[in-house]
Amino acid sequence: MSVFVLVHGSWHDGSSSDDVPGYLRERGHEVHRPTVAGHGAGAPREVTHDGWVASITDYVDRHDLAGFVLVGHSWGGSVIARVAERVPDKVRRLVFLNAFVPANGTRVLDNAPAAYQELFPILAAQSGDNTVMLPFEVWRDAFIGDADLARARETYEMLTPEPLVPTVEKLDLTKFYASADVPRSYVLCGEDSALPPGDPEHGYLANARRLGTFRLVTLEGSHEVMLTNPALLANKLELAGRD
Amino acid sequence: MSVFVLVHGSWHDGSSSDDVPGYLRERGHEVHRPTVAGHGAGAPREVTHDGWVASITDYVDRHDLAGFVLVGHSWGGSVIARVAERVPDKVRRLVFLNAFVPANGTRVLDNAPAAYQELFPILAAQSGDNTVMLPFEVWRDAFIGDADLARARETYEMLTPEPLVPTVEKLDLTKFYASADVPRSYVLCGEDSALPPGDPEHGYLANARRLGTFRLVTLEGSHEVMLTNPALLANKLELAGRD
Amino acid sequence: MSVFVLVHGSWHDGSSSDDVPGYLRERGHEVHRPTVAGHGAGAPREVTHDGWVASITDYVDRHDLAGFVLVGHSWGGSVIARVAERVPDKVRRLVFLNAFVPANGTRVLDNAPAAYQELFPILAAQSGDNTVMLPFEVWRDAFIGDADLARARETYEMLTPEPLVPTVEKLDLTKFYASADVPRSYVLCGEDSALPPGDPEHGYLANARRLGTFRLVTLEGSHEVMLTNPALLANKLELAGRD
Repeated sequence: MSVFVLVHGSWHDGSSSDDVPGYLRERGHEVHRPTVAGHGAGAPREVTHDGWVASITDYVDRHDLAGFVLVGHSWGGSVIARVAERVPDKVRRLVFLNAFVPANGTRVLDNAPAAYQELFPILAAQSGDNTVMLPFEVWRDAFIGDADLARARETYEMLTPEPLVPTVEKLDLTKFYASADVPRSYVLCGEDSALPPGDPEHGYLANARRLGTFRLVTLEGSHEVMLTNPALLANKLELAGRD
Repeated sequence: MSVFVLVHGSWHDGSSSDDVPGYLRERGHEVHRPTVAGHGAGAPREVTHDGWVASITDYVDRHDLAGFVLVGHSWGGSVIARVAERVPDKVRRLVFLNAFVPANGTRVLDNAPAAYQELFPILAAQSGDNTVMLPFEVWRDAFIGDADLARARETYEMLTPEPLVPTVEKLDLTKFYASADVPRSYVLCGEDSALPPGDPEHGYLANARRLGTFRLVTLEGSHEVMLTNPALLANKLELAGRD
Repeated sequence: MSVFVLVHGSWHDGSSSDDVPGYLRERGHEVHRPTVAGHGAGAPREVTHDGWVASITDYVDRHDLAGFVLVGHSWGGSVIARVAERVPDKVRRLVFLNAFVPANGTRVLDNAPAAYQELFPILAAQSGDNTVMLPFEVWRDAFIGDADLARARETYEMLTPEPLVPTVEKLDLTKFYASADVPRSYVLCGEDSALPPGDPEHGYLANARRLGTFRLVTLEGSHEVMLTNPALLANKLELAGRD
């Protein structure tokens, strides 16, 4: 029995309709899925990366959690790396799920494909509140290519705009990279083209390799496998999260 | 129900004995498999890349096809990219199947492994008609390593020599790269070593990444999975080709 | 029916408790698993890379073997490449199993991750007999991440220290790279992070690509899949080893 804290990615929030927590609970685990600050319908979008991190450490304090497996999806990888810097004694293992592992001193957006680096600031400037909404075409093919069109549309409706600011702040991850005390796993979905697959600098494995020694767990599925195959993902998170 | 137009790769032709069209038709789709100019037993080998492309656009015109999924295998990737430039309004989606996506201004052969770049012109010079036949050893291990030896030999007998000229013409793909109006999928077979797997510049994913936003669909199998596991490939082409 | 000669990797020896030989024999094959010089409990650790190679060629002579499939796991890849140089007429096919294929003139350790290149000489200097023992944390996550913790511990107990010297000798592989007379296969486990996965220079596929024309066979599993899924590995070795 493990305690899982699941940190969602951009455009998502903790109320996601996916069934991963249910499948993990069926297997006997305790599951938490906090909403990161600045996410979800109606939440104020003025937030910093420190604010993202604090919303998770606050949640952990409030629920008196320790010895948990901390999972970060996508841009949530940048959050869990910094949470581990703040509360290393509470984290049993870090699990990066098709996630960014930003190089020290970089901005999250620096680690995204060149096309997003150009597009997102433009979309944010047009938004009125400095947020970015993912174009449906990108969602449909690069994020959730393993769903049918109806499911792609239905899940797109659940997304809310992502604040730009935390993605363009330079992140000091010196402590994260100086210590490997918290063991790390990387879960890789083989049909994920949200980041350029196989890219030597910007692909998922390029992110994973920054972890040094880590466990690699693979599965079929897209970036949004929690929405297309939650039972399989729950099984893989269990394998990734065990001691 | 979709309409599929399947464009074969080098050494192959539209009369291939593989069962992919049958499996797609069983699933309710309409399937066309034209022979590209300069391919197949007895066809004249004096052909250009424009001639390759015209043989497909002519077929499409002749059969009054529109709204079709255009699949290109291997060197056929260079053909479908240029067909999409000519008749973008008729193509519903492009599907690259372990295919070249040549960088703008390159020759198809520039995108092949260094060893082929050296070998093919030599073989063509020796052929008498400027064509290249793939050595059996390369076919057996790099192209169809998932077949047994008897099947490898039997399928090798179906191949006919490939004209060199269209593979050494520089291709203007400016229009293809300027517009992403036609959505794209890339189907990747995990056991394909016809191109150097994982090569940062010349591997399949390096080709796929040139597509920008695309859907990635994976399966087990070699470069010639249409001959070794046609039912699985038909299933994956359906997933790659849907809206 | 084939004859298999299995060459183990570092820290292992021929008495490994894994069941791969049993599964191969069930399928009708003859299986040999010699212990490479300098390996196994109690064996003297003063050995060279030539000594490693000679212990295999001696075994082959002593048992009068010919026409065999020669499989090398991990650092055993450097051994089988050089065995093939010595007795090319006896080797039917080389099978590299998540193995090093060292570039000509390099040391095996040059092909390892930077962290090991630093760590191993330090560990050897501390050992008293110039050997290296793998830290358990590395074994658990990077080598055998697909086992549960109990199995990881149990298998770790089977390991014995690896002599450093053969891994820091420059290897002349001129003959190996000059001839492709012996066909080659590369077997790749998708969850192996013992080498940095996907690394353009140091990953498994970077090693595989040095083989030129080769057959690629893939399976799920870690670097130590012989200990976690021997039945699957035996099946894949059969596919990799057939003509």
